[in-house]
Amino acid sequence: MPALSFPDSLGHGPTVGDVGEFEVIRIITDQAGSSLNGDDAAVLRPASPNSRAVVTTDMLVAGRHFQLDWSTPEEIGQKAVVQNFADIEAMGARPVAVLLAISAPPHTPVEFIRGLAKGMNDRLEEYSAELVGGDITSGDALVVSVTAIGQLGGSLPELTLGRARPGQQVVAHGKIGYSAAGLALLQHFGRDGVPAHLRELVEAHCAPRLTPGRGMVARAAGATAMTDNSDGLIVDLSQMAKKSGVRLDIDSSSIAPDELLSHAASVLGTDAWQWILSGGEDHTLLSTTFGDAPSGFRTIGRVTKSRADDLVTVDKKTPAFSDGWRSF
Amino acid sequence: MPALSFPDSLGHGPTVGDVGEFEVIRIITDQAGSSLNGDDAAVLRPASPNSRAVVTTDMLVAGRHFQLDWSTPEEIGQKAVVQNFADIEAMGARPVAVLLAISAPPHTPVEFIRGLAKGMNDRLEEYSAELVGGDITSGDALVVSVTAIGQLGGSLPELTLGRARPGQQVVAHGKIGYSAAGLALLQHFGRDGVPAHLRELVEAHCAPRLTPGRGMVARAAGATAMTDNSDGLIVDLSQMAKKSGVRLDIDSSSIAPDELLSHAASVLGTDAWQWILSGGEDHTLLSTTFGDAPSGFRTIGRVTKSRADDLVTVDKKTPAFSDGWRSF
Repeated sequence: MPALSFPDSLGHGPTVGDVGEFEVIRIITDQAGSSLNGDDAAVLRPASPNSRAVVTTDMLVAGRHFQLDWSTPEEIGQKAVVQNFADIEAMGARPVAVLLAISAPPHTPVEFIRGLAKGMNDRLEEYSAELVGGDITSGDALVVSVTAIGQLGGSLPELTLGRARPGQQVVAHGKIGYSAAGLALLQHFGRDGVPAHLRELVEAHCAPRLTPGRGMVARAAGATAMTDNSDGLIVDLSQMAKKSGVRLDIDSSSIAPDELLSHAASVLGTDAWQWILSGGEDHTLLSTTFGDAPSGFRTIGRVTKSRADDLVTVDKKTPAFSDGWRSF
Repeated sequence: MPALSFPDSLGHGPTVGDVGEFEVIRIITDQAGSSLNGDDAAVLRPASPNSRAVVTTDMLVAGRHFQLDWSTPEEIGQKAVVQNFADIEAMGARPVAVLLAISAPPHTPVEFIRGLAKGMNDRLEEYSAELVGGDITSGDALVVSVTAIGQLGGSLPELTLGRARPGQQVVAHGKIGYSAAGLALLQHFGRDGVPAHLRELVEAHCAPRLTPGRGMVARAAGATAMTDNSDGLIVDLSQMAKKSGVRLDIDSSSIAPDELLSHAASVLGTDAWQWILSGGEDHTLLSTTFGDAPSGFRTIGRVTKSRADDLVTVDKKTPAFSDGWRSF
């Protein structure tokens, strides 16, 4: 494999190999400080009585999960936080902290690390969460591993995948298909060539955003199962349907391409439904509930009895696209 | 960089690229299963009332933190758990769970993953801890990122670095210098060439071991500060001295090379004190206390007032070796 190359936009300032480990840590904690950081391990402040810790981790590899030519370091940091926090929210819990481990080649510009930490902090602040610890090491590949920790208080059960029941509604919070459309635009045009009116889709890919607290809102409102659209809408809903022993039937009209997606699809000569059904990485919250859609959520379908052929249907039929992200 | 090569001892069975993501996850959870795994995030069982979560992470890069020719996959898994759990114990907390994120090239043998997970589980079982979640992705480098989660109950303060006070004793639990001696033997002889009577040192490097619960024992016995010997004895004690605003004076007689270290040093024609003072990676617990050494700990020195020139002294003098592990 060729040595990783960093874009000129990061400048030609010092590298992590130039400044060394302690200065790299100082740069990170300068951007994303916490009084809990700096010991062997971080002790999280007590939450409400008997709250439980909720944990998840995601690893991002340069060239695979992000492209240095397409995403700024800030966006990579923002995305790393949001995709982990979506998993915490999808349990109905409150994200409170992250750990950051980085493997970086010695020629990695310090500016990359600074931007990454700044981007993480931008999103952490939205949640009043903190970067409480981490690890930094030299390595040939640029790998960013983020662990998120949340707190789940109260007596309501967590929003596991296995609690969808026939008769419930399927509800969603957030856009569906925007991230995949943004990726397709980047692949076709490169970052600088994407038409201005389609940049919103690119931003949805490079720096997805969630409204903090929607998972807790849904749990308080009586939501049962929840997940997020990370690997692909049909793939993720299929996991829920399988674990719950039900079928999920989605109304095509509720997830149909909007004007922006339709326009992007026509520019690229492709079918926007592929982005919607297979795309993933939107980190849209997908949930089920007996009652009305919780605040911020909209109804996109209903839970029915399982049937042999399909875990998830669209308008009661096998979906046109059902693949998703594959790690290998 | 050349493509990573795996030793013949792993056989020529299927690779992770052959079997795919879901089968790799099945192999891992087969070896290290948990009912908490398999959802968007893991919700940890409630511990004692108002217990706090304690979190830490370490990233291991093949060719840097471990060598595939020297360490079996089981040993790499064991070490990944122990080095993280040592950080949890060093706060006086009980390790309860880990998350595992892996970046692996598609040609990684499935047997490597199976062995890694088995080795992790061997150590997890000693702590009644569980692998509760993770992430697996393709990447050119083999990178293993482990996050450990502990629980800290009761009303005693956690064992931070900043609580050493003049008049206290410095105490230790575990061998010091064995890991560095083992590494030096591997560098000189290779795994198969190390003389049989020195293999204990190699095992201390490849698969260090801690007696579970020593951190909690020390906290209950009134220990104040604690850390573990990960980057080098003098480096790690210096962190404690700096944060506490004290000097730590170590008795050379209490950490002097034993027969095994002396013998290894004479075989290699080197000075065993370098391993003891600079080596690190033993994950020996290092603590301070006003009272007697807690059960399992021995006294190795005392806490005195800070002085300008040295954070840590040996027999009141500047130590002969004081460097340690550097990430870049």
